[in-house]
Amino acid sequence: MLKLYTAATPNGWKISVLLEELGIDYEVRPINLTANEQKSPEYLAINPNGRIPAIIDTETDMTIFESGAIMIYLAEKHKRFLPEDIPGRTMVIQWLMFQISGIGPMMGQANVFFRYFPKKIPEAIERYQNEVKRLFTVLDGHLNDREYLAGDYSIADMANWCWVHTHNWSGVEISSFKNLKRWNDQIGQRPAIIKGIQIPAKVSKADIKKAGQQLIK
Amino acid sequence: MLKLYTAATPNGWKISVLLEELGIDYEVRPINLTANEQKSPEYLAINPNGRIPAIIDTETDMTIFESGAIMIYLAEKHKRFLPEDIPGRTMVIQWLMFQISGIGPMMGQANVFFRYFPKKIPEAIERYQNEVKRLFTVLDGHLNDREYLAGDYSIADMANWCWVHTHNWSGVEISSFKNLKRWNDQIGQRPAIIKGIQIPAKVSKADIKKAGQQLIK
Repeated sequence: MLKLYTAATPNGWKISVLLEELGIDYEVRPINLTANEQKSPEYLAINPNGRIPAIIDTETDMTIFESGAIMIYLAEKHKRFLPEDIPGRTMVIQWLMFQISGIGPMMGQANVFFRYFPKKIPEAIERYQNEVKRLFTVLDGHLNDREYLAGDYSIADMANWCWVHTHNWSGVEISSFKNLKRWNDQIGQRPAIIKGIQIPAKVSKADIKKAGQQLIK
Repeated sequence: MLKLYTAATPNGWKISVLLEELGIDYEVRPINLTANEQKSPEYLAINPNGRIPAIIDTETDMTIFESGAIMIYLAEKHKRFLPEDIPGRTMVIQWLMFQISGIGPMMGQANVFFRYFPKKIPEAIERYQNEVKRLFTVLDGHLNDREYLAGDYSIADMANWCWVHTHNWSGVEISSFKNLKRWNDQIGQRPAIIKGIQIPAKVSKADIKKAGQQLIK
């Protein structure tokens, strides 16, 4: 059995979406970020970094954290959404890394200063929203003559999509990024995506804000 | 032949260090960040994200950007510094991702507000220096009963080390993190590390600052 420790955030959704796409059974263990459950001794024994998501795969007796590592592990185990040939797999990992190193941290910092930070610092909000727009420009250009980020639909699309579709929360519009918008809308219609982003539960904007404020304390 | 497009930054050093550890021939193509060469049409054709590092491997006819993707590609190609068994390789990728998603972006933001930003914003400096200390605490705890981050010395150690050893630039001391300091000192003595961080050239602090200021424009 696969246990998924998660909460309603883009990094959590990356794994629930992938598990839904794989169509495999898993057990959801919701981590209450507002109650700081990710810093409990029980959870720190699973992920010493105190962040979601993490998985325990009882079949292989493995505990894994870092959403990017979990995605590669699951895709390799099930031989789906990550090609086995070196050029194909390298391009998928490259665009997965683009999310892990860029889209995720920069949208995350935009959210911090635009939504959660106790003080309004216009320069910081502007810095991160501009960086998000710059990264969206890169994705938009890349998607100009491609349906997906790297060959067929892959973990790179899932990872980037789980962040990009929350652009309003970061205060960045995507309507002017035509190719990115087409890709965002198209992937958003996949049944596994629709189901995956409701795990562990639908949450209100007020709850997301509360969790974000807790996270930066 | 392998061509490495790089500059004297932690993300660039990750690849020059790995290439030195692998002991393979490569050609260095320095990218002048202060002159904004990473945004030239020639370089954007190699990496549309306009960031270093990138490689071209003429043997396989592949162009790759994102340092994490390049590290996995090179380690797999040469079957070194990344185990082939699933548990071993997953743990290395997990701690590599910890650098890509955490150590890198957070030390990077600490550098931005502590060194490059036109305005001094104490709350932003504090936020990122605190986050770096939190991540150092995680590494320090993990290294309490381990020589390296994930089994033998691996790409996870190289990636994290290339950032961690620049802690002074982020304004964060590591002397109180005993295990992290031991690991940092020990890895810093490796010949490939000493050589790798001098590629493409030794740079002055003034030049690093100039490049950083250019980067956030």
